[in-house]
Amino acid sequence: MSDHVYKKTEIVGSSKTSIEDAINKAIARANATLKHLDWFEVVETRGHIQDGKVAHYQVTLKVGFRLSE
Amino acid sequence: MSDHVYKKTEIVGSSKTSIEDAINKAIARANATLKHLDWFEVVETRGHIQDGKVAHYQVTLKVGFRLSE
Amino acid sequence: MSDHVYKKTEIVGSSKTSIEDAINKAIARANATLKHLDWFEVVETRGHIQDGKVAHYQVTLKVGFRLSE
Amino acid sequence: MSDHVYKKTEIVGSSKTSIEDAINKAIARANATLKHLDWFEVVETRGHIQDGKVAHYQVTLKVGFRLSE
Amino acid sequence: MSDHVYKKTEIVGSSKTSIEDAINKAIARANATLKHLDWFEVVETRGHIQDGKVAHYQVTLKVGFRLSE
Amino acid sequence: MSDHVYKKTEIVGSSKTSIEDAINKAIARANATLKHLDWFEVVETRGHIQDGKVAHYQVTLKVGFRLSE
Amino acid sequence: MSDHVYKKTEIVGSSKTSIEDAINKAIARANATLKHLDWFEVVETRGHIQDGKVAHYQVTLKVGFRLSE
Amino acid sequence: MSDHVYKKTEIVGSSKTSIEDAINKAIARANATLKHLDWFEVVETRGHIQDGKVAHYQVTLKVGFRLSE
Amino acid sequence: MSDHVYKKTEIVGSSKTSIEDAINKAIARANATLKHLDWFEVVETRGHIQDGKVAHYQVTLKVGFRLSE
Amino acid sequence: MSDHVYKKTEIVGSSKTSIEDAINKAIARANATLKHLDWFEVVETRGHIQDGKVAHYQVTLKVGFRLSE
Amino acid sequence: MSDHVYKKTEIVGSSKTSIEDAINKAIARANATLKHLDWFEVVETRGHIQDGKVAHYQVTLKVGFRLSE
Amino acid sequence: MSDHVYKKTEIVGSSKTSIEDAINKAIARANATLKHLDWFEVVETRGHIQDGKVAHYQVTLKVGFRLSE
Repeated sequence: MSDHVYKKTEIVGSSKTSIEDAINKAIARANATLKHLDWFEVVETRGHIQDGKVAHYQVTLKVGFRLSE
Repeated sequence: MSDHVYKKTEIVGSSKTSIEDAINKAIARANATLKHLDWFEVVETRGHIQDGKVAHYQVTLKVGFRLSE
Repeated sequence: MSDHVYKKTEIVGSSKTSIEDAINKAIARANATLKHLDWFEVVETRGHIQDGKVAHYQVTLKVGFRLSE
Repeated sequence: MSDHVYKKTEIVGSSKTSIEDAINKAIARANATLKHLDWFEVVETRGHIQDGKVAHYQVTLKVGFRLSE
Repeated sequence: MSDHVYKKTEIVGSSKTSIEDAINKAIARANATLKHLDWFEVVETRGHIQDGKVAHYQVTLKVGFRLSE
Repeated sequence: MSDHVYKKTEIVGSSKTSIEDAINKAIARANATLKHLDWFEVVETRGHIQDGKVAHYQVTLKVGFRLSE
Repeated sequence: MSDHVYKKTEIVGSSKTSIEDAINKAIARANATLKHLDWFEVVETRGHIQDGKVAHYQVTLKVGFRLSE
Repeated sequence: MSDHVYKKTEIVGSSKTSIEDAINKAIARANATLKHLDWFEVVETRGHIQDGKVAHYQVTLKVGFRLSE
Repeated sequence: MSDHVYKKTEIVGSSKTSIEDAINKAIARANATLKHLDWFEVVETRGHIQDGKVAHYQVTLKVGFRLSE
Repeated sequence: MSDHVYKKTEIVGSSKTSIEDAINKAIARANATLKHLDWFEVVETRGHIQDGKVAHYQVTLKVGFRLSE
Repeated sequence: MSDHVYKKTEIVGSSKTSIEDAINKAIARANATLKHLDWFEVVETRGHIQDGKVAHYQVTLKVGFRLSE
Repeated sequence: MSDHVYKKTEIVGSSKTSIEDAINKAIARANATLKHLDWFEVVETRGHIQDGKVAHYQVTLKVGFRLSE
């Protein structure tokens, strides 16, 4: 982490299949507009229920990325 | 969510295979006695260890459901 | 849990594939030096990002084990 | 509170107009099926946005009521 | 905890004599209507004061019980 | 806030009509004995229920005031 | 919430009249530069005091909005 | 709680014998200088160890009392 | 506490009779292997229920002890 | 801590130079009106920004002091 | 704070020398792209260790700034 | 962090001069008995007061270190 400054942004990914997939979808989307993504922290895991089954996992992440100098 | 009133109930599901499976088992059981299940929130993830391996994942959820008028 | 005394230790496991795998790796390592592992509690889930994808899941656990009399 | 035993239940009320109205709607609905409602605690205040305005306030409460002997 | 699903309910017991007595009164009352009570977690300890002395201890518990299959 | 030292005191206001009114009543009472009240922070919102309606909102505040030099 | 990715941003609105008004002002301002605002969560309620009265309510919100594909 | 305003003060009682005794000592001392003590909330329980035994229980309380009009 | 360095370890004691007894059992066991135990902090109080009564109180403590130079 | 009763008060110190200086200013001011100050706990660290630099550090403390018998 | 709307952004500064220096570096970087920086709140203090010494302090801040009308 | 397993231990350092010095003393002591210290997280900052001044800063850290394979 040396002398850099980092920013954290909070995003929510969702997936029909798994918590990991929701995390990856959120990070892939963040990667489309932000450079230097470095780490994530799971803030909340929740989801939607339909017909007595999980319809979507919804995972809130904080994603940290290095700010360019 | 319009004008409805919702109730949250706290349940614990367990599974030998995964966190997602524990969530689904808890929701399936709640669905056997409650109507209009709408969303869930993961409150705690823990588990039991046997022979140096995870024996069960135990996931505590809050499950929200709409109360009938 | 009867009349025993337990100790909790905090460890961090990591995995390229899943949260469950990171949990299992942490427990397997704890099991190499500690006896009577009994339960775990997930404290934090985070990870490292490389090339816009999850490089490692890093899961912090508290692991409880029975102290010998 | 003398020697009674109380139970707390968690409910979510919603309203288009105010936080207080959401609280009252939740309590009115709880009162339809539960006796001896005694106090409430606000757990979370959130809401839905439509067209850049608050569409609904959604207030999560814990409602305490006395159990009959 | 094997493959069962558990539910948690939140209750408040009170006692003039001790925290332990308040816990026991809450559990005894829960046991009158619920089967398979398994564990409790203390959520809050508070009480009422009269004439400069504790009049009642009031202990809020989460009580976990196994749901029948 | 310059070089001053501030103190925070915790008070609870109540009102039959609204959360804002409970806040104002608490601050008005604090103002009767304390000088230089500067800011407040809402710590908890709860209330009393009678006949299936909110009887009183009870709002706990921390009130910050500047200490005289 | 289907397959979308959402972002949360943290804003603070203020109002001389009420908590709801502070929430609405914050959301109206966010709506001026962000599309697809979907929900909000109240994080903190505080305010400024002048002459023994509330001068401004200051409400911190997290506002969630859908990221365009 | 009607229309009164209450204040909370934070005190720490200690006792060689029990948690309840530490609570009572703190309240007795508060009662020596404050009127209208109404309720308490346990904030923290800790203590001092000597010769491998509890030397003192130290219990931090918030004590609420009604302010005179 | 002067210039020493302290370590905290987390242990769980259990007792059939009281919270204080569970604390003392945990400390007695810690004292068997650790020197210079100095203070404890109660982290969690829970327990096991059998036949509608408390079977064991289980109290989680952090125990602080001075490290030898 | 023996058999004494302690009180905690919450104060905010500020300083242009450092967090430690803000702590010391708060304690010096508390010492002007309170006897037997014994310990402090940092509750919050924040500050004011002017011209892209820290203008003041503002540190909120709980200060514990022994009540005279 | 009058009638303005503020935004909070979360950044992480690092420094080899002190916590205050890490705070200042984070704010200086934020000031390069954001106008009207007004206050900061310390969220987390951590750091990296090399050769048994602190290599970098890493301080996470929320920085509040006024949004232009 | 690749595929390693890490352990966290909780220690308290103290210093008469600064928070940073307390952190460094705690880490230096941990380094005397543990290998591969990697990072620290500040958990609590408190201290002792004598004669109206800070006598010692006491900083509680979690220190993370890599477990050898």
